Amino acid sequence: MKKFNKKDIKCLQDIMLARRDVRGNKFNNKKIKNKILNELLTAANCAPSVGFSQPWKFVIIKSKNKRNKIYDNFQEENNKAKKKFKNKPLYNSLKLEGIKESYLNIAVLYEKSEKNVLGQTSQKKMGEYSVVCAIQNFWLMARTYNIGVGWVSILKPKRVKKILDIDKKYKLIAYLSVGYVDEFLDEPELLKLGWSDKKTLDEIKVI
Amino acid sequence: MKKFNKKDIKCLQDIMLARRDVRGNKFNNKKIKNKILNELLTAANCAPSVGFSQPWKFVIIKSKNKRNKIYDNFQEENNKAKKKFKNKPLYNSLKLEGIKESYLNIAVLYEKSEKNVLGQTSQKKMGEYSVVCAIQNFWLMARTYNIGVGWVSILKPKRVKKILDIDKKYKLIAYLSVGYVDEFLDEPELLKLGWSDKKTLDEIKVI
Repeated sequence: MKKFNKKDIKCLQDIMLARRDVRGNKFNNKKIKNKILNELLTAANCAPSVGFSQPWKFVIIKSKNKRNKIYDNFQEENNKAKKKFKNKPLYNSLKLEGIKESYLNIAVLYEKSEKNVLGQTSQKKMGEYSVVCAIQNFWLMARTYNIGVGWVSILKPKRVKKILDIDKKYKLIAYLSVGYVDEFLDEPELLKLGWSDKKTLDEIKVI
Repeated sequence: MKKFNKKDIKCLQDIMLARRDVRGNKFNNKKIKNKILNELLTAANCAPSVGFSQPWKFVIIKSKNKRNKIYDNFQEENNKAKKKFKNKPLYNSLKLEGIKESYLNIAVLYEKSEKNVLGQTSQKKMGEYSVVCAIQNFWLMARTYNIGVGWVSILKPKRVKKILDIDKKYKLIAYLSVGYVDEFLDEPELLKLGWSDKKTLDEIKVI
């Protein structure tokens, strides 16, 4: 049984602290080798999943044409969002995606099961949550390979699925921009720009 | 800007591969120091979150009385589940939680926002997904401290919230058993027992 030590703890802390949500102005177009992409997906594939169902699927998107269409949907959705943030003028100046600038995009899907899944009988959402665990593994491993990831959430899942011709048995969980970057910020961008503060940990309350 | 190298990659791979979902028969009752618990929560607290909203909250549960009540709910829900798996007799022999055996339990909550959240305007679920990212950070850091985590999903969230007296502005995302263990299995238990196979990565398909 593998035992970890202080050096391993420090290593994981450094990775977690250095991980960023990367937007378009930071990506460059350096190629990601298939071998490395495979390592990132392998990390995702060893995430925990409810009943060991591993209900994730990854669609790799390089097509400029598809990405342009996804970007159009981002703009449409972001125009709606801008109205909601009209009292916060900072919103308009934020770069919130890297769809076209990143080397590739990945749509991460949840495959709905027709059969009962162990552990998912009382809480249906567990399947989706397993996919998110896989995304977080991917994200951390990408950072360790010095590759940036941005989660683009200002998109209409229905539209994204249509553009990518995705079967109805899948649900879109995440749309990621993935690529090498010129820079990782030392702190989250929204913190640096004063959009919101870093949450402090509550004192540990035990019941 | 922090650059990671091959040693860091190996370190993270080892942690991810050694992480397990731990059930009751593996936990021991060794105390987790507050300082260490704080480190695990700090790892959770640097997870990515939509619009840097950090919408997570952790409730630490040691109370035997509360845990007994949660366990009762597990039994109730698992009795329902057993009926769904009546064609798979292995189900009945599985130990699926460690509520009472682990040193402590943690309820992980999502705090619903009354205000608009950046990035959450087109996909409401993003807030919950952020909480799952925090859980996965917690889980990996716990493993690095040689502490086991089990996600107990065969529970009725409504009932758990009532037992723990949790305000309605929060949604229960996860109920975790957390503690030192006598053993981490070398492979996921459900794989070892033949419940399901390890998913192989599809060949990378690019569109």
